[in-house]
Amino acid sequence: MSILMEMKEIIERVDRNLMSYLEEGKPEKLMRAVRHYPEAGGKRLRPLVAYLVAEAVGRGGERSIPFGCALEIIHNFTLIHDDIIDQDPMRRGRPAVHVLFDIPTAIIAGDAMFARGFEVIGKTETTPERLNRLYAITSRTVWLIAEGQQMDFDFETRNDVTPQEYLEMVEKKTAVLFACAAEGGAIIANGSEIQIEEMREYGRMLGIAFQIWDDVLGITGEEQKLGKPVGSDIRNGKRTLIILHALKELDNRKDEAGKELLVSTLGNEKANDEEIREVLDMLRDLGSIDYVKETALSFVEKAKANLECLDDSKEKEMLSALVDFAVGRKR
Amino acid sequence: MSILMEMKEIIERVDRNLMSYLEEGKPEKLMRAVRHYPEAGGKRLRPLVAYLVAEAVGRGGERSIPFGCALEIIHNFTLIHDDIIDQDPMRRGRPAVHVLFDIPTAIIAGDAMFARGFEVIGKTETTPERLNRLYAITSRTVWLIAEGQQMDFDFETRNDVTPQEYLEMVEKKTAVLFACAAEGGAIIANGSEIQIEEMREYGRMLGIAFQIWDDVLGITGEEQKLGKPVGSDIRNGKRTLIILHALKELDNRKDEAGKELLVSTLGNEKANDEEIREVLDMLRDLGSIDYVKETALSFVEKAKANLECLDDSKEKEMLSALVDFAVGRKR
Repeated sequence: MSILMEMKEIIERVDRNLMSYLEEGKPEKLMRAVRHYPEAGGKRLRPLVAYLVAEAVGRGGERSIPFGCALEIIHNFTLIHDDIIDQDPMRRGRPAVHVLFDIPTAIIAGDAMFARGFEVIGKTETTPERLNRLYAITSRTVWLIAEGQQMDFDFETRNDVTPQEYLEMVEKKTAVLFACAAEGGAIIANGSEIQIEEMREYGRMLGIAFQIWDDVLGITGEEQKLGKPVGSDIRNGKRTLIILHALKELDNRKDEAGKELLVSTLGNEKANDEEIREVLDMLRDLGSIDYVKETALSFVEKAKANLECLDDSKEKEMLSALVDFAVGRKR
Repeated sequence: MSILMEMKEIIERVDRNLMSYLEEGKPEKLMRAVRHYPEAGGKRLRPLVAYLVAEAVGRGGERSIPFGCALEIIHNFTLIHDDIIDQDPMRRGRPAVHVLFDIPTAIIAGDAMFARGFEVIGKTETTPERLNRLYAITSRTVWLIAEGQQMDFDFETRNDVTPQEYLEMVEKKTAVLFACAAEGGAIIANGSEIQIEEMREYGRMLGIAFQIWDDVLGITGEEQKLGKPVGSDIRNGKRTLIILHALKELDNRKDEAGKELLVSTLGNEKANDEEIREVLDMLRDLGSIDYVKETALSFVEKAKANLECLDDSKEKEMLSALVDFAVGRKR
C-alpha cells in the first residue's frame, strides 16, 4: 500500500472515533453547532501526527486515537472562536458557525468543544501518571494558543510587527498544537524523555513550516488547489511573513516609492491584476519570497533531524513525508 | 473566632493564591482582561466549598486550594462569555470585559482562563489517580455548564418554558460547578466513595438553592444589598422560576386578564411602581413567591441532609451555615 493510502486509512479510523465523541449532549442546536466544522472535513493532521508518532515510538498508534481526537476537537473549537474574531463568514466551503447559528451559540459551542476535548483525553488507555501529563501539556498548549490569537488580533492594528514577532505568533497559534500532538503520541507510547522532547520539537517545526508555507501559497498562488486567486492575501491586506520581510527590506533600502506602492496595494480589494503583478515582482526582487521559502525549508530540515531518534519504520517515513507535504513537495 | 471571621480568613488565603495563578502570560492586554473580573471581587464560594469539604472530610483544606482556585478561574471565564452573550455592559460595578476591551479580546480571555484553570488543577498535591479524577469531573462539569448556557439563551425566545426545564437549566448553569467543588474537595481529602457522592449532592443542592433564591430577591427586592430596585427582574422581563410558575398557574385558572397584565408588564422598562406593585400582588396571590421560597428551602434541607455523613467539625457547621446564607437566613 502507498504511504498516502495508508495515511488515508488511519484518518478514516480517526474520523469514525471523532464523530462518536461528538454525539452525546443537548440541546440539539448546540450539538449541531458542535458537529458543524468536524463534519465539514479537515485534514485531521493533528490526530495523524499523534498516531504516527505513537506507532513509530512504541506501536502505540491505536491507543493514541482518543488523544488525537481530543486535539482535533480542540482545534475545531479554536476555529469557531477565530471565525467570530476575524468575522469570517465561511469555513471549509460552508457558513461559519456564528453565521449558520448566531454568535452566542458559536461562543458556547466553542467552550463546549474545549470541555469535550478534555473529557476525551480521559479516555486514553495509559498509566495515571502519563494521563496527567497529557492533561498538563494540553492545557498549557491551549493557553499558548490563546496568547497567539491575541497577538494575531493585536497585529491587525499595528504597523511595526517584526518577522520575529510574527514567527512567535505562528508558533503559538498553530505550531504548539502540532507539538502537543507529537509529544502526546510519544508519551502514550512510553517513549524515553529524549524521544518525547524530540517529538515535541518535530511537531513544533512541522507546524511552523506548515503555517508559513501557507503564506507563500497565499501570495504566489502557486498551488491552485488552495482555491485562492493569485494575490488574494495582498488584496486582503494580510500581514504575512513575506510582507513583513518586504516592509523591513524597503526601510533598510530607504525605498520610499516602493513602500508607498506596497502599502497602498495591501488591503486594496480593488487592486487590478497589473498592480498585483507589480507588487509580486517587487516581493521577488526584494528576496522576500525566497526568504520565506528558505525559512520554511529550514524548519523542514529541523523537523526531519528530530526524527533521527526513532528506529526506522514505515511510520517514521510517513512523518518525514508529512513535512514534505507541508511545504508542497511531492515525494 | 466567629464562623464568618473564619470564612473570611479562608477566602483571603484563597485570594492570594488565585491572583498568583493569573500573573504569568502575555501580551499584557490579555493578562489585564484575564485579571479584570477576579480583581473586582466575588464571593469565592466555589473555592470556599472545596476547602470546607476537604477540611471536614479529611483535613485536606490546604491541599484543596489550587483546585478551588481553578474552579474560580473557570467560573470567571464563564462570566466573561456570559456577559458577551447577554450583552451585559457591567459586572461587579465595573465595565464588562468585552466593553472595557473588545469582543475578540473577551472571547480569547475566556478561553485562556479555561486553559489556565486546567493548568492550575495540575498543581494539586494528590495521587495521580485522584488527579485524573479531578480533571475528569471538571471537564464534564464545564460541558454541562455549556449545555445550561445554551438552554438559558434559547429560553429567551421561547414562551413555553416549564418550571422543570428552568430547574434543569439552573442545575447545569450554576449548580454543577458547586457540585464539582464539593466532590473535588472530598476526592482530595481521600473521602470514601459514599462521602464523595454525598458531597457532590450537597454542592448541587446548595447551587440550586442559591440560584433560585436569587430569583426571589430579584422579584421581591427583600434584600437591599443586592442593589437592585424592587421589581427590576420584572422590568427586565427575566423569565425566572416565579414568573414561570405564575404563567402556568394563570393558564390553569384560565385567567386571561391576569395573564395579559403579567405578559404586558414583563420586560416593560417603563412600567411604573403602581404596575409593578399590581404584578407583585398577583404573584403573591397566585402563590408563586411562596412556591419558589418553598422550593429553595426544600433544596436547603436536602443539602443539609447530605452533610450527615461527615463527623462533627467546625467546617461541617460552616457548610451548614453556607446553605442558610444562600437563602438569606441569618445564623
